[in-house]
Amino acid sequence: MLVWRGTWWNEKDVKLEIDEPGFLYGGVAYETLRTYDRRLFAARYHYERLSVTLSHLGVSLPVDYADFRRILEEGVERLGVEASIRVVATPRGRFSAFDYVPAGCELIVYIMELKLEPLGYVKVKVSSVRKIDPISTPADLKVAGRTDILLAKRFKGDAYDVIMLGNHGQVCEGTFTNIFLVKDGRLITPSIDSGILPGITRLNTIRLCQSLGMSVEERWVEPSELYGADELFLTHTSRGIVPVNELDGWRRYDTKVGQFLASRFEEFIKSVEENWE
Amino acid sequence: MLVWRGTWWNEKDVKLEIDEPGFLYGGVAYETLRTYDRRLFAARYHYERLSVTLSHLGVSLPVDYADFRRILEEGVERLGVEASIRVVATPRGRFSAFDYVPAGCELIVYIMELKLEPLGYVKVKVSSVRKIDPISTPADLKVAGRTDILLAKRFKGDAYDVIMLGNHGQVCEGTFTNIFLVKDGRLITPSIDSGILPGITRLNTIRLCQSLGMSVEERWVEPSELYGADELFLTHTSRGIVPVNELDGWRRYDTKVGQFLASRFEEFIKSVEENWE
Amino acid sequence: MLVWRGTWWNEKDVKLEIDEPGFLYGGVAYETLRTYDRRLFAARYHYERLSVTLSHLGVSLPVDYADFRRILEEGVERLGVEASIRVVATPRGRFSAFDYVPAGCELIVYIMELKLEPLGYVKVKVSSVRKIDPISTPADLKVAGRTDILLAKRFKGDAYDVIMLGNHGQVCEGTFTNIFLVKDGRLITPSIDSGILPGITRLNTIRLCQSLGMSVEERWVEPSELYGADELFLTHTSRGIVPVNELDGWRRYDTKVGQFLASRFEEFIKSVEENWE
Amino acid sequence: MLVWRGTWWNEKDVKLEIDEPGFLYGGVAYETLRTYDRRLFAARYHYERLSVTLSHLGVSLPVDYADFRRILEEGVERLGVEASIRVVATPRGRFSAFDYVPAGCELIVYIMELKLEPLGYVKVKVSSVRKIDPISTPADLKVAGRTDILLAKRFKGDAYDVIMLGNHGQVCEGTFTNIFLVKDGRLITPSIDSGILPGITRLNTIRLCQSLGMSVEERWVEPSELYGADELFLTHTSRGIVPVNELDGWRRYDTKVGQFLASRFEEFIKSVEENWE
Repeated sequence: MLVWRGTWWNEKDVKLEIDEPGFLYGGVAYETLRTYDRRLFAARYHYERLSVTLSHLGVSLPVDYADFRRILEEGVERLGVEASIRVVATPRGRFSAFDYVPAGCELIVYIMELKLEPLGYVKVKVSSVRKIDPISTPADLKVAGRTDILLAKRFKGDAYDVIMLGNHGQVCEGTFTNIFLVKDGRLITPSIDSGILPGITRLNTIRLCQSLGMSVEERWVEPSELYGADELFLTHTSRGIVPVNELDGWRRYDTKVGQFLASRFEEFIKSVEENWE
Repeated sequence: MLVWRGTWWNEKDVKLEIDEPGFLYGGVAYETLRTYDRRLFAARYHYERLSVTLSHLGVSLPVDYADFRRILEEGVERLGVEASIRVVATPRGRFSAFDYVPAGCELIVYIMELKLEPLGYVKVKVSSVRKIDPISTPADLKVAGRTDILLAKRFKGDAYDVIMLGNHGQVCEGTFTNIFLVKDGRLITPSIDSGILPGITRLNTIRLCQSLGMSVEERWVEPSELYGADELFLTHTSRGIVPVNELDGWRRYDTKVGQFLASRFEEFIKSVEENWE
Repeated sequence: MLVWRGTWWNEKDVKLEIDEPGFLYGGVAYETLRTYDRRLFAARYHYERLSVTLSHLGVSLPVDYADFRRILEEGVERLGVEASIRVVATPRGRFSAFDYVPAGCELIVYIMELKLEPLGYVKVKVSSVRKIDPISTPADLKVAGRTDILLAKRFKGDAYDVIMLGNHGQVCEGTFTNIFLVKDGRLITPSIDSGILPGITRLNTIRLCQSLGMSVEERWVEPSELYGADELFLTHTSRGIVPVNELDGWRRYDTKVGQFLASRFEEFIKSVEENWE
Repeated sequence: MLVWRGTWWNEKDVKLEIDEPGFLYGGVAYETLRTYDRRLFAARYHYERLSVTLSHLGVSLPVDYADFRRILEEGVERLGVEASIRVVATPRGRFSAFDYVPAGCELIVYIMELKLEPLGYVKVKVSSVRKIDPISTPADLKVAGRTDILLAKRFKGDAYDVIMLGNHGQVCEGTFTNIFLVKDGRLITPSIDSGILPGITRLNTIRLCQSLGMSVEERWVEPSELYGADELFLTHTSRGIVPVNELDGWRRYDTKVGQFLASRFEEFIKSVEENWE
């Protein structure tokens, strides 16, 4: 793994202070990116989403988009293989047990090889942990250690991801995925106002469906609809579209539509210019 | 500042790895303690509360209470002055962008001098950020970077603390304090089932009041009651009882009852054996 | 149908004023009772529950339990067949578009023949209407026209009842039934603190199970558990225990445990003295 | 009082059946109108809002707007004085303890003299009853006996109205009024998405302010803002704008802006054509 902290390091040669504020007081914003054919995918989208997280915390990124992109591209080149990238922005300012006054943040970038083992039979669970209500924490505040995600992941077991419901029991999303339902030929996915993080792969999936003449309903989704669906699939940056075989250990699904979309996904996103800006 | 990480270090001589899981993925449990006359205060209480936080995360402390106490006492002796102590338990296990599987945790202890500047005119604000509903995160999951606390602290300004309401608008607590109201000679404080962290100083304050023949109502409290109260005071470990002079920049309060209780607090807690076990 | 309003009437011979407050301004408390072998079933339970509803509204019943019982028994005798009874308490006081100041209430009793057609294949649906949160309306405020029940019933179609989730998406109850799940030989039913009306038949079912050495878990139940259950059954006064064959039009259930309990129900409740007081 | 039920009656000469469904099972939609100079005010607005309520219940009005208007105007003419009008739509269909299947509704109109005693010192309270969350009942389902309103009114005492907060503690509205705040020369009122009924007088007040060059912020309002405001005023059809002198028995307000707007209100609404259509 390579780490950028002002300059590039091998991970063993760079350390955090023992009183690192992001460690002691939290508030570490992050994004996860990947490359396709060693090209950065959706970098602008992730840069902007990271900026939104930081704006909730009252700070801004210490680099503009051009520099951000340059750093990441440099890292990808040094790594020399298909990359998985974690970008982290950790708070700098005045902190104590009583105060949390970030005056800025430091950018740290981690780059490692993207290894995707073939997916087999994909299991998913519904968590009983509710996603934090937006009145407490915006859904697009993407910081390490969101407690809803920590707690939901605890009972993940051998599932690929766990699905969280919202404060009122509406279907939201997985801990690192968005979810789509297929029912009677229609595609359905929770709307942004359900309290979800608007994933880039969710967006690209909606675009792909539209390009194929399939419309996608974005609306509140009830848990009953998950069980009554013909198919389910997940979307996230590293894998694109992931058809689900099984929910909660007993409900089995067909994966025809999901597999069809998955097979078209990579070619499609490569054709969308916005993903490469 | 002294730091214990297996053994005692000066803070400059000990570092965190750049991929420290508590930094990258969160879930860092913590407690803040203090000494009175260089004696550890309420150590068992904090040890048990830390254990509760960790049990929510599925791990347990690597030390028993006897060892925990011994480490802290050693640190206090080395420091040689009245101490403020931050105990941190950071997760160890398997972590990635997709997995959070803690198999245990590491204990880190920070000890520094307790400096209490005299309090002047104490201002408090009511935050519009709601405390995270227990259905998403238990109120007694005390981890660094709870997002409700980060966001509420953002608009603290020159206030001593900000008061958070719960998901249904009930009064909960400050970001590091509990709150009490005085109204027509009665004392009122939000009940545990309002969704609050049960502070040791809150508990000692209730005991103090009882010892003085004043009963304390523990129940849901409405925001309207804050504004309609005769007095407000906060409680937290470092300061004990803190009378509030002003709320939201315009509502002023008498501090008679609060000052009376504050004047009795230190002597009282020293007389309670349980605080010294 | 016979109607008691001070004395017994045929339904055609007694009217309501055009400005009846319970009609114009709501707040009509009610209970539904039945007889077994022309004996009043659980009259004290219903009397007490009606009193609770009225106490929420700040009034009390104009008759004590002895009179209440006497009136109902008189009605059953006059009717001369197995009876279904609706007891209504409508507010009396000062009402207008702006004021709702009940100073008391009037009791009206409706008695008609209890006709129970044989049950066939019982279908149930999960409603997307959430039961009103207790912070807005106590679950045991049993008044005509609770809006959650009106709205949930609207999409009942050919279902026997619709199941409502609570404000946080937890399983609550049907619009006139309570619900039980059977899973791996265990019985589960939503706890009172899920925000449900504690039905007498729910209580008698728990007692029946206990008498048979089967324990019943009372706790928050997630919607996922409905779909994952081996069996579901409903309980309500008129029918006792009603095994469910189908949920949401596609999920089918075994009814073995439900049918067994249903077959034992009537004999059991006849043996419980408290039901006949 | 005159009553229209197919034709005009004196209130003594027309009755409701003893098993009137609106009485036994609820769901009675209503609107309250008034005249200015014996002309119907905002009749179309109320007709449409009544239609919305009924559409939530799955039925529609048995009369079109022209007939609705004709009936009301006839009533006003018969009454011969300034009128207060209550329009009621009560369900017709199949109802029982188990079923609520409205197939239509019957319109009943009550007309009486509008008597407005001069307002003195206006007191308001904040209720601890939360308005029913829209996920349980739409805010614009205006039926008699909404349980939140019944319960909030119970502790009204000598207050003019009680203010309800929403499920998350946000300020909503009174039981028959909307609320406005004045703070540092700005006007603020809860937004529709706070979960309020959009009153015609609220709308006319916003228009009046705009006509005077004063903008009105429509947004979520916190309870703290009520106490911190310079002025409060209520709006409702019968009275227009009602400045508030006192909240919760201790917080006093200036009424300058409220009185100024109140003094301009009647003239203004008479000039808005839409109110007379």
